[in-house]
Amino acid sequence: MADKDILARLEAAIAARRAADPSSSYVASLNAKGLDAILRKIGEEATETVIASKTGEREAIVHETADLWFHCLVMLSWHGVSVADVLGELERREGRSGIDEKASRK
Amino acid sequence: MADKDILARLEAAIAARRAADPSSSYVASLNAKGLDAILRKIGEEATETVIASKTGEREAIVHETADLWFHCLVMLSWHGVSVADVLGELERREGRSGIDEKASRK
Amino acid sequence: MADKDILARLEAAIAARRAADPSSSYVASLNAKGLDAILRKIGEEATETVIASKTGEREAIVHETADLWFHCLVMLSWHGVSVADVLGELERREGRSGIDEKASRK
Amino acid sequence: MADKDILARLEAAIAARRAADPSSSYVASLNAKGLDAILRKIGEEATETVIASKTGEREAIVHETADLWFHCLVMLSWHGVSVADVLGELERREGRSGIDEKASRK
Repeated sequence: MADKDILARLEAAIAARRAADPSSSYVASLNAKGLDAILRKIGEEATETVIASKTGEREAIVHETADLWFHCLVMLSWHGVSVADVLGELERREGRSGIDEKASRK
Repeated sequence: MADKDILARLEAAIAARRAADPSSSYVASLNAKGLDAILRKIGEEATETVIASKTGEREAIVHETADLWFHCLVMLSWHGVSVADVLGELERREGRSGIDEKASRK
Repeated sequence: MADKDILARLEAAIAARRAADPSSSYVASLNAKGLDAILRKIGEEATETVIASKTGEREAIVHETADLWFHCLVMLSWHGVSVADVLGELERREGRSGIDEKASRK
Repeated sequence: MADKDILARLEAAIAARRAADPSSSYVASLNAKGLDAILRKIGEEATETVIASKTGEREAIVHETADLWFHCLVMLSWHGVSVADVLGELERREGRSGIDEKASRK
């Protein structure tokens, strides 16, 4: 099974949960609090990813990176931006040297 | 084409570039600077994702989220952690209510 | 009354609270959780400062910046680093053009 | 010499530099780039503070905390918010147990 399928299915699950009762769903409760609450989680999980990576504990690295990406999906869903667009942007970079890519953007 | 394929191909490209000449590859130069330099980029791109999301500009949201995920892939590669593990962790959460999931973790 | 006095008094208050009962003091409970918990707060409050600044609400800007500095003081106290050292480093920069300062560091 | 004096003098120096030629002053060049550029630096320096604290290197902790606070001063100046307001907010907290303080805010 392909991973895009995982991200696409998670995207659909998040979209479905947004309309749910906030008391029954984490995603619904986060959306009810508003965009700033979602963005606070991105900052928080990014910091936890950095801390886990400095500690070097593999399980925590996997867990915190998944938390970070999950909250990015919630944020994309808030804006109605598709995860396919993010993956498309990543694909666009795949063929290039990163240094060239950085240079071409600036 | 499935997206996992995109992330998996990007993971392979990053792994290949790590061994390249730092002057010819952004990924190689970042790895040559060490883990702290990679983590600084994660903090930086997370902040840029938050800023783009507050501004509400779709193109910037896509771009900065892709930048954030890209540097997460570079960090995972540094530790030899597979992106499949992160996607597997996300898949594990897909079937659950997020609130239940959060509760079960704590 | 001078502000250094405020930071120095807050530093002393934090040092005193670290030894308190975690159930009676926020600082004691944060220290009991360990350095990672303190650093998570720095990442969280930095993100909240960025969000408040993007929103442009003065009261929130003051509040979140104070939260960020407060948790920096808790972190400095964890390491036994004096706030006077941080203020001394800032003073060292005062006389210089920032661009020159940045250039001289690199 | 009191530290408030240091922060107040730095605040005045930043205010003066904002009007300077961007090519001659770091503060002027940062202001010319706009608020987002200032906020990116806050996110970046917060991450560097977290990394330095995890590494446990005292000199880097002092340096990165000073960098973080300096860019907070630049951000406050952008909004015309006085550092005295931030210190006043910190002073307000000094007399209280942090747990009580957190509880009273929520």
